[in-house]
Amino acid sequence: MKQNIYDNEAFFNGYSKIRENEYNANNLFEKPALYSLLPDLTGKAVLDLGCGFGENCIRYVDKGAKRVVGVDISEKMLAVAEAENSNISITYLKMPMEDIGELRERFDVVVSSLAIQYVEDYQGLVNNIYNLLNDGGVLVFSQEHPINTCFSSGSRWTKDENGKKLYANLEYYSVDGVRESTWFVDGVKKYHRTLSTVINTLIGSGFRIDKIIEPVPTPELLREHPEYDDLLHKPDFLLVRATKVC
Amino acid sequence: MKQNIYDNEAFFNGYSKIRENEYNANNLFEKPALYSLLPDLTGKAVLDLGCGFGENCIRYVDKGAKRVVGVDISEKMLAVAEAENSNISITYLKMPMEDIGELRERFDVVVSSLAIQYVEDYQGLVNNIYNLLNDGGVLVFSQEHPINTCFSSGSRWTKDENGKKLYANLEYYSVDGVRESTWFVDGVKKYHRTLSTVINTLIGSGFRIDKIIEPVPTPELLREHPEYDDLLHKPDFLLVRATKVC
Repeated sequence: MKQNIYDNEAFFNGYSKIRENEYNANNLFEKPALYSLLPDLTGKAVLDLGCGFGENCIRYVDKGAKRVVGVDISEKMLAVAEAENSNISITYLKMPMEDIGELRERFDVVVSSLAIQYVEDYQGLVNNIYNLLNDGGVLVFSQEHPINTCFSSGSRWTKDENGKKLYANLEYYSVDGVRESTWFVDGVKKYHRTLSTVINTLIGSGFRIDKIIEPVPTPELLREHPEYDDLLHKPDFLLVRATKVC
Repeated sequence: MKQNIYDNEAFFNGYSKIRENEYNANNLFEKPALYSLLPDLTGKAVLDLGCGFGENCIRYVDKGAKRVVGVDISEKMLAVAEAENSNISITYLKMPMEDIGELRERFDVVVSSLAIQYVEDYQGLVNNIYNLLNDGGVLVFSQEHPINTCFSSGSRWTKDENGKKLYANLEYYSVDGVRESTWFVDGVKKYHRTLSTVINTLIGSGFRIDKIIEPVPTPELLREHPEYDDLLHKPDFLLVRATKVC
């Protein structure tokens, strides 16, 4: 089942609004970490899985990529991408990322920003990415951290009587599988996988792990944006860089 | 500072008692996972860091190791090891694992069971292990899971009004550093490191990550020992296998 919540009006509007806030967690933590993991893109062919508005695709062209293919399941997202982030080197394809096995092109770099947790068949996706990469090619992705994706019900925080957050609540971390939640709309499905599943699947499929990042606010950033001290208790994101080895 | 709580009478007695219970978490989850990560030990030289009672050292001889060196900071632990688990192929050394850089011997396999979280200088330890390993040598270790080592104060669980555990409490996961706790004695120091610190330090020091395990009880085991369903919310242990690459 390939989930397309993104073309739901309520979801799309809510999601667009978050992204309009310059100081959102994506801009402050996820994107810098993702970019820091990229290899030199000069002259490279890049595939972006779940490209959304295409903001990263255009960035990869700026970084020297000679060709970028952005894949997304959502027509609405791709309409924004075409309108705001089109470029002669970029091709946007409406396609669920589960279907990338159909692509005939090969790539030097595959990137995915915060999309993989929506895919049920992670092993299948990793196999497809491996097959689409040239030898020595690099996979860089971010996803919601397993500490977050495990959660499904109740409150995400245990608070004291004054409402101060004491602990992040961890629930069924050890149990891989679907979690339903409400994010602008009801019934959003995400697939929780433990860190060992995320990492071992890559290794077992022929990747070498190069680096993992769990982004944390710096003390300077916390002084300006104290609202992000939640991240000291638990990271929002997990980022992985892996190289295809033969 | 090299911590030696193990020669404290109260600690030693409490610790020995846990280990006497056949169905403790070490026997059910940690040891099988650790053994599953070992390479073939036939004819190999093995170094066991924090060998304690030497139960693993004798096991490595049974598995074909031609030589085993067991290192531990605790005289009391090593006295038990010598009495109960001595063998012509095993040498027990009283030495804090921080000092293994002094060893002149080289090894094919370095193993450590639930000891590394007591070491402050992880980077230094990993460098020492790298230098002690022959090319292609393997490091296998277990430690308390970062989801556990992050915690320092208050209650580890958020419970409902009937005392049922709802959530495991996560506290300052993102902040590496020392945590003091009470475990039989006050002021036991453990060093929390995020998963990314654990993994990236290994990779940065010349290791390839082979596999990670976060042990979970099987449904069959849970039927016999329902007390371990806590582990579905959070794993107790993290195990890593890594190979020295040149």
